[in-house]
Amino acid sequence: MVEISGVPFGDKTVPVVAGPCSIENKDQFLSIATELKELGIPLLRGGLHKLRTKPGSFQGLGEDGYMLAAEVSKNLNFPLITEVTDPRQIEALSKFVAAFQVGTRNMYNYDLLKELGNTKIPVLLKRAFSATYSELLNAAEYVVSNGNSNVILCERGIRTFVTDTRNTFDINAIPFLKNRSHLPVVADPSHGSGETYLVEPVALAALAAGADGLLIETHNDPKNALSDGQQALTVKQLSSFLEKAQGILSVSGRSLAKL
Amino acid sequence: MVEISGVPFGDKTVPVVAGPCSIENKDQFLSIATELKELGIPLLRGGLHKLRTKPGSFQGLGEDGYMLAAEVSKNLNFPLITEVTDPRQIEALSKFVAAFQVGTRNMYNYDLLKELGNTKIPVLLKRAFSATYSELLNAAEYVVSNGNSNVILCERGIRTFVTDTRNTFDINAIPFLKNRSHLPVVADPSHGSGETYLVEPVALAALAAGADGLLIETHNDPKNALSDGQQALTVKQLSSFLEKAQGILSVSGRSLAKL
Amino acid sequence: MVEISGVPFGDKTVPVVAGPCSIENKDQFLSIATELKELGIPLLRGGLHKLRTKPGSFQGLGEDGYMLAAEVSKNLNFPLITEVTDPRQIEALSKFVAAFQVGTRNMYNYDLLKELGNTKIPVLLKRAFSATYSELLNAAEYVVSNGNSNVILCERGIRTFVTDTRNTFDINAIPFLKNRSHLPVVADPSHGSGETYLVEPVALAALAAGADGLLIETHNDPKNALSDGQQALTVKQLSSFLEKAQGILSVSGRSLAKL
Amino acid sequence: MVEISGVPFGDKTVPVVAGPCSIENKDQFLSIATELKELGIPLLRGGLHKLRTKPGSFQGLGEDGYMLAAEVSKNLNFPLITEVTDPRQIEALSKFVAAFQVGTRNMYNYDLLKELGNTKIPVLLKRAFSATYSELLNAAEYVVSNGNSNVILCERGIRTFVTDTRNTFDINAIPFLKNRSHLPVVADPSHGSGETYLVEPVALAALAAGADGLLIETHNDPKNALSDGQQALTVKQLSSFLEKAQGILSVSGRSLAKL
Repeated sequence: MVEISGVPFGDKTVPVVAGPCSIENKDQFLSIATELKELGIPLLRGGLHKLRTKPGSFQGLGEDGYMLAAEVSKNLNFPLITEVTDPRQIEALSKFVAAFQVGTRNMYNYDLLKELGNTKIPVLLKRAFSATYSELLNAAEYVVSNGNSNVILCERGIRTFVTDTRNTFDINAIPFLKNRSHLPVVADPSHGSGETYLVEPVALAALAAGADGLLIETHNDPKNALSDGQQALTVKQLSSFLEKAQGILSVSGRSLAKL
Repeated sequence: MVEISGVPFGDKTVPVVAGPCSIENKDQFLSIATELKELGIPLLRGGLHKLRTKPGSFQGLGEDGYMLAAEVSKNLNFPLITEVTDPRQIEALSKFVAAFQVGTRNMYNYDLLKELGNTKIPVLLKRAFSATYSELLNAAEYVVSNGNSNVILCERGIRTFVTDTRNTFDINAIPFLKNRSHLPVVADPSHGSGETYLVEPVALAALAAGADGLLIETHNDPKNALSDGQQALTVKQLSSFLEKAQGILSVSGRSLAKL
Repeated sequence: MVEISGVPFGDKTVPVVAGPCSIENKDQFLSIATELKELGIPLLRGGLHKLRTKPGSFQGLGEDGYMLAAEVSKNLNFPLITEVTDPRQIEALSKFVAAFQVGTRNMYNYDLLKELGNTKIPVLLKRAFSATYSELLNAAEYVVSNGNSNVILCERGIRTFVTDTRNTFDINAIPFLKNRSHLPVVADPSHGSGETYLVEPVALAALAAGADGLLIETHNDPKNALSDGQQALTVKQLSSFLEKAQGILSVSGRSLAKL
Repeated sequence: MVEISGVPFGDKTVPVVAGPCSIENKDQFLSIATELKELGIPLLRGGLHKLRTKPGSFQGLGEDGYMLAAEVSKNLNFPLITEVTDPRQIEALSKFVAAFQVGTRNMYNYDLLKELGNTKIPVLLKRAFSATYSELLNAAEYVVSNGNSNVILCERGIRTFVTDTRNTFDINAIPFLKNRSHLPVVADPSHGSGETYLVEPVALAALAAGADGLLIETHNDPKNALSDGQQALTVKQLSSFLEKAQGILSVSGRSLAKL
């Protein structure tokens, strides 16, 4: 079991982490965060450093957004998870994040993982595009063996010959990794499918397969999102999803984590 | 909606098709079938023609097993689904099967699909190892355009770089195919995962994602099965699974199809 | 070493098999065949039964083209290799083909392979879209163990996450398979790359890696070909390629097979 | 055309870069480097920072090896290419390296690429395990758009369902990338195949397909190498290879780059 700001992963209560792909500006982030908080979402996500395939794409607010992100999180008392992409960001981010996310492009960045191992802040480690289970578990070991055992694994879809969906969500990974490791395993159905209409069924599937939590990209205006709008849920869609999620979890004697 | 012997696929009731990978002999098949019937399983599966990677492996009883299979099915009043691997088998199999299964190795066997299109017997069409969604839908079209619209699509796992599991079950395929096509979509978690301990979570996930039915390999003595024993459930394991399956289905207002 | 009409594969002379993807009509086939014969190509290829993804695509002339194909082959004294897609075609095709091609969609069609094993006619066996090396070698074993040792393996590209090319030509397969098996290994750079401008470099690479022969789709009017025009070479492009091929082969003390 | 210490890539002369996977100690590195220099190899490679899947594996000498590496390179007048895995290494490495290698695990490390773009030192950019061509070209753009146009692309094999070889060398990538981009394209047949006996045929294939250079792992004692010994060539095997390489290159009017 790993806790992020007192919210347990790997227990009978299952947290849904929600928020926008990118923190775009204060209005956008405060507005989404406020709605998610009201919905009972226990942990907030939002990207500051975005690794985008093209140099010209929006790369996140970067350091310019730290203050904004910290304020929204503090004022709403809403613990924040954000992605770290370079070891030199760790110190400054440590001051306001509840957990670090390591993205799919950095799962093999062992220098970064080792330095995250020197902190006690939880690490949500996403599987790389084509990482084997062993590689993911070994990447976690880079953090754990350096002294930080607060690692949560995240299945977020893999790269296969299928191109009609953004990635192929590897549902087998959830029971497989839980069988091989004591670390909690969460799912990111947003990247795992890449289309809003697929997010709900894949998220429910992940819970049915035993996932210890979910990451769901949520936006107040998906069509105008600066990144990944096509896979975001609105807060309303998320709310409708949560009811079904509760139904699925109750089959295994679990329930949604609430604030 | 497609019916096999009056059992609908694509409706509010969801059938679980169970049985051994191979029909090995009368005792084995009758024993398993009897137990499954008592459990309320509505449709029986069992392989007569097995396509095995190695020429020396057990290839199924073939024509020698037709009589046996027909008798068990008839005596128990238990409709049988079996795999057809060659167009020349169609006529003889037509006399006792409730539906034809086309296996992953034959999805591109368009000669076979066209001739199945000339019958009215339902066809359960499995996705090939690395078939795109379009290829699967086009393969179905070979049957439908020849006059037989009773086609059920089956996701059974795809081939990826992951080798710790037999295949990678493509959970996205279920909502994607249901969105693109009016044909029912069922799941084969046995081949999709390849290990008994993974079958239940993947099967529950498939139902949560909207699958219209399941194919589950069941054996009375998995350790001594002539094929695929490592992925079979015992009847007892299947029984325990069905309870959970009912719970998952109720979330979407559905229920298990019963005899 | 396997011979097709006296042309050896696996020897110091390396045959290039050329011809159109599909035999479209007598003018087209005779015209291409005549030019290829003049160029010194030792073996002719041309498809009669085409397995196409969509039911509405041109499926080849089928039996209607047998006479035409047989005549062109006989009149030009040009041995013909064509694809067999159903065991029931074997008898009629046997009367005029020099070798059977088994296409990528039929590599797992073990009923077909077993019946080809009952003949003595050479079989050019293409690797399935996502067949492992073991599966390809085991498929060959279905032919060989039934009594026909005249099997030639063909690497024709595999299905990967790369979609900018039709397939990913697996160059490693050539030295790997030659190391594991005594069977000749040929390459199909036309399907392996899928674009005319890629065919020559990939074909030269295959020879440099040790391929025992090549299959190259050639057309007299690629833009109007009924199938696969975008990957065909004109006879002029083929002629230019052959010079370079001869240069590559001479490095390993080999040479192009000539009529 | 990009030059590393005056050695052009993308010209009629084709450089082979050789050296051990890891610099293990002075004796090993000096001995291999001396032999390679005598063989006429124009550029030396050797790893200081190794990204290994398991935390317990040998991770390279790291900073402790900088002096050693610099001395060997300087004393032999043998320009050195080594991998950079963290932006904070750039300054110190800049003092003695002729070019930076960015490994497959860092192709998506855009922070690193941007900072390499601030130098004028050439960057040899390896394709990530499952990077599309576009992703590789966009990664190069992160370096180029920051002001450093000295980027060389490297195909080093991709991750596919094939596990009998370490990776699947994507031979199509060479002509495809050369067609899409003006950047030189080199090949790493050592990682692309993973077995010594496959390195030569794959390397020759890469040259036949148009590669502008090669990276070949070479060791004086492969069986006792601290990393990747199973894919290393001895200097003797490399010498034998170079003769054949010269033959292949002459077909396209090219030749091996010599000291």
